Amino acid sequence: MSARAGIVITGTEVLSGIISDRNGPWLAGRLRERGVHLAHTTIVGDRPSDLRAALEFQAREGVDVIITSGGLGPTADDLTADVVAEFAGREMQLDEALERRIAAILERLRARWRGEIDEDAMREGTRKQAMVPAGATVLEPVGTAPGLVVPADGVTVLVLPGPPGELQPMWRSALETDALQAALAGAGVLEQRILRLFGPPESEIAKTLRVAESDGVPLDRLEITTCLRRGEIEIATVFEPDATDDYAAFEAAVLERHGATVFARDGETIDELVAAALLGPPVRTVAVAESCTGGLMAGRLTDLAGSSAYVLGGLTVYSNEAKASLAGVDPELIARHGAVSPEVAVALADGAIARLGADLGIGITGIAGPGGGSEEKPVGTVCLSVAERGGARVDRMLQLPGSRAMVRERTTTVALHLLRRLLDGRAA
Amino acid sequence: MSARAGIVITGTEVLSGIISDRNGPWLAGRLRERGVHLAHTTIVGDRPSDLRAALEFQAREGVDVIITSGGLGPTADDLTADVVAEFAGREMQLDEALERRIAAILERLRARWRGEIDEDAMREGTRKQAMVPAGATVLEPVGTAPGLVVPADGVTVLVLPGPPGELQPMWRSALETDALQAALAGAGVLEQRILRLFGPPESEIAKTLRVAESDGVPLDRLEITTCLRRGEIEIATVFEPDATDDYAAFEAAVLERHGATVFARDGETIDELVAAALLGPPVRTVAVAESCTGGLMAGRLTDLAGSSAYVLGGLTVYSNEAKASLAGVDPELIARHGAVSPEVAVALADGAIARLGADLGIGITGIAGPGGGSEEKPVGTVCLSVAERGGARVDRMLQLPGSRAMVRERTTTVALHLLRRLLDGRAA
Repeated sequence: MSARAGIVITGTEVLSGIISDRNGPWLAGRLRERGVHLAHTTIVGDRPSDLRAALEFQAREGVDVIITSGGLGPTADDLTADVVAEFAGREMQLDEALERRIAAILERLRARWRGEIDEDAMREGTRKQAMVPAGATVLEPVGTAPGLVVPADGVTVLVLPGPPGELQPMWRSALETDALQAALAGAGVLEQRILRLFGPPESEIAKTLRVAESDGVPLDRLEITTCLRRGEIEIATVFEPDATDDYAAFEAAVLERHGATVFARDGETIDELVAAALLGPPVRTVAVAESCTGGLMAGRLTDLAGSSAYVLGGLTVYSNEAKASLAGVDPELIARHGAVSPEVAVALADGAIARLGADLGIGITGIAGPGGGSEEKPVGTVCLSVAERGGARVDRMLQLPGSRAMVRERTTTVALHLLRRLLDGRAA
Repeated sequence: MSARAGIVITGTEVLSGIISDRNGPWLAGRLRERGVHLAHTTIVGDRPSDLRAALEFQAREGVDVIITSGGLGPTADDLTADVVAEFAGREMQLDEALERRIAAILERLRARWRGEIDEDAMREGTRKQAMVPAGATVLEPVGTAPGLVVPADGVTVLVLPGPPGELQPMWRSALETDALQAALAGAGVLEQRILRLFGPPESEIAKTLRVAESDGVPLDRLEITTCLRRGEIEIATVFEPDATDDYAAFEAAVLERHGATVFARDGETIDELVAAALLGPPVRTVAVAESCTGGLMAGRLTDLAGSSAYVLGGLTVYSNEAKASLAGVDPELIARHGAVSPEVAVALADGAIARLGADLGIGITGIAGPGGGSEEKPVGTVCLSVAERGGARVDRMLQLPGSRAMVRERTTTVALHLLRRLLDGRAA
């Protein structure tokens, strides 16, 4: 029997959609790695009664651990510690040593702010943050807010601050506390595998599952989830270690039907696969000349640390003049075929190679919308070309669905897959 | 008394953090606009019992409407309609006319997929999607999944599909149904205002609230939330229309203490303000030469529709060779001051102007990490320069905290604020 957990994200600004939550997904991943089953994530505003109701709901559902994020700041609307103490039936007490440590952290931080600081306000905030429920284990602050492990009736509450840069290291220190270790003691180890496919529609995956089952592949011990993500299909499977053979049989069935479109068997992203292929040895360098993606292609290639080893740079050529002057596209070509055309994509890829001295070039031109479409070339029309210096090349002209942001993002996904094909010697 | 709503997001892939939820925040915004108070958002996996528990929790909390997203697809793990029917005590029935309409949609879509299609699988999926709870109002599919408005005991459940491109238009058609209008009849109209500040630490805002209150500004009818976002402070306030004077007094207090740092009083983003300033008249054009942001600065400038009117393009100059050959940075300058230096940032801004023929140029060079830092120039060191052709200029050398992704994102925020200052004639 695996341990179960619930997550409670607090903050009116998260609930109201003004900022998006990064902590729920991150914590879910960490729980999964440790074999802890996540039952629910609840998002509540800054009203104490709503937070209290969420804690009680999670506890009633029988979880072993509730993890809260947010509401530990110095201002009056930060109420998580108080509400959790009340839920656990524990008094709030001032931890004076903690108060001194928070004050010392603030001293170092205030050097950054050149305006005047209100000493009283800061002292009051510090005292508030140093109030902890009796019997709780304190987690040292990474920012200024301490975390807490609070034992309650039949459940342990792990209280973490909202900023991801604080929450993440404090999760790791929480794992070292006796209190959290005891609460998670029931956790087994679950395996998780992720297959990624680029190409088939989602209904084909449903069919594959049915075919596999009727062929005698045992699926009942595999928790299989399929989803569409940035134009790719992801098949995530969670299972107990003794169902490894079942997973192997399932994976074989997927590979048999979809082999050519399965690009990752171990959760690797297309970004990571492209990076690894570029790093070689030998290292091959890449450059971009892009129009409708407006820098996002280069931005995505440089997301990964260490990308300076293989990304030389890029040209964002939004205007026709820039296409000509920066990427060397013949203005005649644009006049003849239009800025959004396979011919201009080819010229952009070649221009990226020539202007940056790269081994490989990506050329992108398209209509991201919402305006600029025509009957012949509607919004979502994108032409891509990926080329090797003096060598192979793959080109595509696509009709992508969705909003401006979706068209721009999916275009970068397609380009990475084309680049991977070229790097694997599968241009054709 | 305003109507209350709850949101239930379904999907193991969302709960487990594999994909992030965009529907909860979007629906929250739409509810707020209509004066509906959102109590909780709950995220559940694809287990029917967890979804059922979440529906019961929301109903017990006394909401008038529960909105669900996801779980309406053709595969066996898509169970939302069944669970909601059970929750509402209604039988599932086949809607044959709906089945024919879904089949017609699929006929048009299948043209896209060049592989073989399994006819039986597709027919079975279509039939599943055409099963609706007795007495429910059907919302026409935008993709292939219909939505539902399902009356239950004391609460109305609005069932929407997961893909945001389907959910959003179907929310609008749901608002036109009698069933949902009746459920939301209690909703009043709430006002929402957003102030955005760039500069002060969050504790100063807490102080401002206290000072305002002690000066007699009535805050008790304002629901004020402050949060840090991409390096900016956002103060979001929700209030009933007859508290408009209270809000005006509060806003005046914030402006008095923080006037110089308040850049938006009506929720405008810095991106929108920069776009409006560039559009003039007269239109002024901008170009970018960026290193550590690797294309994200140009990508952010071109996020907005219509940006081709003022963004000429950009140079992503990751390598020193690219800085020299593309942006015309003197290699001597790099050798003397280092690639990350105020001097090189200035040269990049000037290079962007010269190479793209722009009115304004942004130059960015820095160390996004995690590697590449030194004692003198640690990770997070970023030099920015924003210049007018032959005119004013603003430069900054910063030390930004956080991860590689945070450093890259915050750098673009700072650059937009510097650009705005220059456009407002406040360089100095």
